[in-house]
Amino acid sequence: MDESRSGYFRGLDLEAAAAPLRVAVIGAGYWGPNLARNFTASPDWELAGIVDLDQGKAARLAAAQGGVPVFASVDELLDLEEVDAVAIATPAHTHHGIALTALQAGKHVLVEKPLADSRTKGLEMVEEAEGRGLVLMADHTYCYTPAVLKIRELIADGSLGEILFIDSVRINLGLVQPDVDVFWDLAPHDLAILDFILPDGLRPMEVSAHGADPLGTGRACVGHLTFALANDAMAHVHVNWLSPTKIRQLVVGGSRRTLVWDDLNPQQRISVYDRGISLDRQSSAADRKASAISYRLGDTWSPALPEHEALGQMVAEFAGSIRQQRPARTSGVAGLRVLSVLEAVSDSLSADGKPSIVVGNEPQLEASR
Amino acid sequence: MDESRSGYFRGLDLEAAAAPLRVAVIGAGYWGPNLARNFTASPDWELAGIVDLDQGKAARLAAAQGGVPVFASVDELLDLEEVDAVAIATPAHTHHGIALTALQAGKHVLVEKPLADSRTKGLEMVEEAEGRGLVLMADHTYCYTPAVLKIRELIADGSLGEILFIDSVRINLGLVQPDVDVFWDLAPHDLAILDFILPDGLRPMEVSAHGADPLGTGRACVGHLTFALANDAMAHVHVNWLSPTKIRQLVVGGSRRTLVWDDLNPQQRISVYDRGISLDRQSSAADRKASAISYRLGDTWSPALPEHEALGQMVAEFAGSIRQQRPARTSGVAGLRVLSVLEAVSDSLSADGKPSIVVGNEPQLEASR
Amino acid sequence: MDESRSGYFRGLDLEAAAAPLRVAVIGAGYWGPNLARNFTASPDWELAGIVDLDQGKAARLAAAQGGVPVFASVDELLDLEEVDAVAIATPAHTHHGIALTALQAGKHVLVEKPLADSRTKGLEMVEEAEGRGLVLMADHTYCYTPAVLKIRELIADGSLGEILFIDSVRINLGLVQPDVDVFWDLAPHDLAILDFILPDGLRPMEVSAHGADPLGTGRACVGHLTFALANDAMAHVHVNWLSPTKIRQLVVGGSRRTLVWDDLNPQQRISVYDRGISLDRQSSAADRKASAISYRLGDTWSPALPEHEALGQMVAEFAGSIRQQRPARTSGVAGLRVLSVLEAVSDSLSADGKPSIVVGNEPQLEASR
Amino acid sequence: MDESRSGYFRGLDLEAAAAPLRVAVIGAGYWGPNLARNFTASPDWELAGIVDLDQGKAARLAAAQGGVPVFASVDELLDLEEVDAVAIATPAHTHHGIALTALQAGKHVLVEKPLADSRTKGLEMVEEAEGRGLVLMADHTYCYTPAVLKIRELIADGSLGEILFIDSVRINLGLVQPDVDVFWDLAPHDLAILDFILPDGLRPMEVSAHGADPLGTGRACVGHLTFALANDAMAHVHVNWLSPTKIRQLVVGGSRRTLVWDDLNPQQRISVYDRGISLDRQSSAADRKASAISYRLGDTWSPALPEHEALGQMVAEFAGSIRQQRPARTSGVAGLRVLSVLEAVSDSLSADGKPSIVVGNEPQLEASR
Repeated sequence: MDESRSGYFRGLDLEAAAAPLRVAVIGAGYWGPNLARNFTASPDWELAGIVDLDQGKAARLAAAQGGVPVFASVDELLDLEEVDAVAIATPAHTHHGIALTALQAGKHVLVEKPLADSRTKGLEMVEEAEGRGLVLMADHTYCYTPAVLKIRELIADGSLGEILFIDSVRINLGLVQPDVDVFWDLAPHDLAILDFILPDGLRPMEVSAHGADPLGTGRACVGHLTFALANDAMAHVHVNWLSPTKIRQLVVGGSRRTLVWDDLNPQQRISVYDRGISLDRQSSAADRKASAISYRLGDTWSPALPEHEALGQMVAEFAGSIRQQRPARTSGVAGLRVLSVLEAVSDSLSADGKPSIVVGNEPQLEASR
Repeated sequence: MDESRSGYFRGLDLEAAAAPLRVAVIGAGYWGPNLARNFTASPDWELAGIVDLDQGKAARLAAAQGGVPVFASVDELLDLEEVDAVAIATPAHTHHGIALTALQAGKHVLVEKPLADSRTKGLEMVEEAEGRGLVLMADHTYCYTPAVLKIRELIADGSLGEILFIDSVRINLGLVQPDVDVFWDLAPHDLAILDFILPDGLRPMEVSAHGADPLGTGRACVGHLTFALANDAMAHVHVNWLSPTKIRQLVVGGSRRTLVWDDLNPQQRISVYDRGISLDRQSSAADRKASAISYRLGDTWSPALPEHEALGQMVAEFAGSIRQQRPARTSGVAGLRVLSVLEAVSDSLSADGKPSIVVGNEPQLEASR
Repeated sequence: MDESRSGYFRGLDLEAAAAPLRVAVIGAGYWGPNLARNFTASPDWELAGIVDLDQGKAARLAAAQGGVPVFASVDELLDLEEVDAVAIATPAHTHHGIALTALQAGKHVLVEKPLADSRTKGLEMVEEAEGRGLVLMADHTYCYTPAVLKIRELIADGSLGEILFIDSVRINLGLVQPDVDVFWDLAPHDLAILDFILPDGLRPMEVSAHGADPLGTGRACVGHLTFALANDAMAHVHVNWLSPTKIRQLVVGGSRRTLVWDDLNPQQRISVYDRGISLDRQSSAADRKASAISYRLGDTWSPALPEHEALGQMVAEFAGSIRQQRPARTSGVAGLRVLSVLEAVSDSLSADGKPSIVVGNEPQLEASR
Repeated sequence: MDESRSGYFRGLDLEAAAAPLRVAVIGAGYWGPNLARNFTASPDWELAGIVDLDQGKAARLAAAQGGVPVFASVDELLDLEEVDAVAIATPAHTHHGIALTALQAGKHVLVEKPLADSRTKGLEMVEEAEGRGLVLMADHTYCYTPAVLKIRELIADGSLGEILFIDSVRINLGLVQPDVDVFWDLAPHDLAILDFILPDGLRPMEVSAHGADPLGTGRACVGHLTFALANDAMAHVHVNWLSPTKIRQLVVGGSRRTLVWDDLNPQQRISVYDRGISLDRQSSAADRKASAISYRLGDTWSPALPEHEALGQMVAEFAGSIRQQRPARTSGVAGLRVLSVLEAVSDSLSADGKPSIVVGNEPQLEASR
């Protein structure tokens, strides 16, 4: 482990912590500008520079952020003592290389989803960060939206009861990606959200995936993913690039209440239905099959959600995790759990929908969640 | 084959055909009254009687239909020469016995969905009817709704192009049934509709099903079903008894247009989206993966639908098939195809979601479609 | 006043009261069958007969209700001692004549909306009933729906606070009526509902109405109606026969909460928004204009509504008001208040939208509400 | 008239015209930054400077636009020969003074809605611009949205037929404004849109307005506005600051089709209903009242709308009108028509809802539309 960084943690000076941390954004394409803008706007951060292979893009983004420095390469950037952290917004297959280099240079690292393009690479990143006492955070942006924070809260405080089923639909007319299928493109969002809201995180033993490539593009454009949750509950995710209608909907069916999050309905994003089927769990298995079931028809409730930009909360959490020397809420380990499921999805697809084992979720990793 | 019935077909007298056919309804529970009402209202039919083990129920239904006769048993009814047909609206496990008896008595038979409670029984019913030259019709009511008739038409005339994917969602707060799971309770609707609208009917080679029983009722209460369609397309059906919101939605994604049927939106049940992804099918496989894909953003169109009651059309079709000595649009064979898929669903559920072979769709049966 | 009827009230025998009252339905057209069906189904009532000029219609309705007697004329019916009450479902211009005759024969009277076709006639009916100690009830059916009952309750218990504005929209593609304009056709519903839910009933001092007849049919097909409520609040009603979309929506804006009733959304008919603008009413007028206003952003709540048919509740209330010798919840006086507003609407229309005085709401009538 | 500016029009040099025009934005508050951003992005314009009494605001906006000059006062700015035009985004009561000064300095002028805070002032501005041959344009932004451009087109090409009624609803939880009521705050949008889409512009003879101030703020917070259109049609506008739900909906009922614009439904902003009531206009007045009416039930159609930012189109139109020496599509005269209606609204409100004459729409002004 880099001595100087290790010293950073050991000798954390609270007064110094109040000064902004310095971060550079690597990648000035689609997502990088959003990160840069939020780092600039945050009292926790000072934007220290921009890197992109396309120097023109980097220069334009740097100018728009008040003229921060542009670096010609990642290496040049990492040489700088005064840079505390980097945020990586480059194509997924480059995450591993850049993140390892940055960690080895003693920088904290934020990575756009997915954490990497394979579980093995993600695991290396996680281990490198752990070994060096550095923060590795996955930019699972949705987890910082008011809606997802509220869902997590309502599950955690028992408002929904035990989870019975989860259904997540993320469909729209989407670009057929050159290198990934619709699962790797869209499902990281759903899986990251599930990892965030489930009390024990995303830890399915196995996963079944069914996909189709009706246009002959060489990769699945429509997909369905199912796996078991605790207590015989089931999760299902539908991802689709071919739908002319856009749907972003998550249903969490609970034994006490059921929640529907419709992200495209700004007037009522979250609805909590106090109705459903009740079962007297004290009853014997025999009874349960017959008379112990009853129906509740109750009110619907839609909580007011605070208005804040998710990315603003996310960069604050990145700073908080560094300063408090703790894993971020959406840690590299969380990103790894998402990768583990995605790999099992690919396995199941190759096996024609047969359930596939999810590698990972090892005990030693869980400890750091 | 019963000689007298065979004579019926041989000597069909067109003038006689114009006289109403006589039908008895067996089962005066939930569905029977709807059938009785529609037979009474139809110029094609004369309601000749009601049978139910519960004599009180039978009497009340008979009275409400203008005082038609009540029969103490099916046998008593079938003895009557003047009854041409029976409509069976009893529990699924009794369909096979009643239908066989009725066919053997030379009556045409209409059966509420599902045709039977197993594929084998359904096959016996189909063969009995074929052997006797009698009509065996499945009451797939949805197939006679203005919406489904329009969908069938838009697929048949090429308006949607090649089918790329189908997604059918049928969820609500439902009664946990004493003897069937959510697939056997709800999916017959979806499967019957698919059988009706698909150019070649419902003939998947294999099916994957994933279910959950989070309440411990002894049967699946939430389920997902996927199978391949022609040309690498995929169908998915979501059935759910635990959803506090009711959804009845079918999406047919096509290469030219995509159709969404939202049965709970009476102001716009069907929407046809003239947008999607286009692919130059002439291009080589290599090209296809890259540049041959383009996007269309076109208008949305919602056809006006005629207003008629589906059951009225259904009983007219039952009469038409008898008079014209042809299979009904929703024939017993169609009902058998649905049973074949349902059995494969049960197999897949038992095998933890592994794809299961769909028995049936044999060539000799296809001929009669 | 008929002595025998007056004796009915004087010597009300509670045991006798438990026996069903006997009612005849006059008018077997569109609405009569609904009334007949609900009287038949009610334990409070025995359907004693049907009258209609069209004897065929009357006979069919009588048969469908289990073979009740058909009367050739209203007079023949009214001669019968054993008939306690009549329900009038004939064209509006005949209500006055039939109701007066029935009241004079000592029968309690239920009248389909509107109570009559002029305020003067309605007043005569009310006075005749009061003079004889008989119940005159307006069939304001909507007031017995679970939604309107809940709205009345939420206003009465202070959940909404002071009413700030009311907006009622009732538009669809409607039949251009031969004898009434869109206000007299549709607005009775809105006005009856307002009369029912407003703490002091419907008592505007004046009314402004704006209508249009763009098709040249000779009567308004589109209309807007506004009037002041207590505390400087305002009500607005939009009625329209020319709208291709159907809307049934009532908004009650309150100082504490705002309620939206969307009658065409069965999954969420009533939404109560706990957000709005607050004003410190203690502040001086000067302050009020500036700093005393604040905003609340709270939750939305949709109460579960019991499922019952409004007409069932309505006929129960008719029986209850007779037995308890009290005005019905939707009394003839309530019907008269609606007529008073409708006449002022017609006056305002003739005066090109100038506000017109609402005659009526006289103190001696208010006493009986 | 300033000689040099007059020379500008006389000697318009097409090559010179291709060079960007130079514009300064006056007012760096809520709307100014949007204008500045669009001028910067436009090939037609060069942003020449920013003015605001609040020098800090002006400086921040100037920096965000790449460091354009900040001027300490409007006068300082107007002295500059190289500035061709100004865009005024200051409070409404200052529009008149700034615009007159700018016009007198020979600058073309764009003014945020409303054009001024009184009809008289607006008229002075229009006359000043006309006298000097300068463009005076109202920033009626909505008129450049894809939806409104499409509505204008569908009315102009006869797709909707004759207009029968218009209903515009613009309600939400709004800030109670310190100096204007809800009509002057919100209705300029509706009126500007009507002026743009109506074939003859917004020229009602008189207007009725009904408002309420239930919170005692000293000005109307809820309002309804009605006026007659050509051919006995009617327009209605509902504006409301007290509604917890946000609605932005315009219905244009036509004799051939009816259009609904729901601006908050991005998936189907415009729906065109090919159903309604038909009238045989050839029939005599007597017939018309009876049998000449028929109903059509046709398809619904939702045209795809191009995606562009309205403000981008608006600044292009500003440049186009200057270069082609023609009135802008949303000219000062259009802005004046809106003011004329708003003044009549205030008159009607003061007169308790009595219809008030709309001053203006004089023939000499119409010529310049």
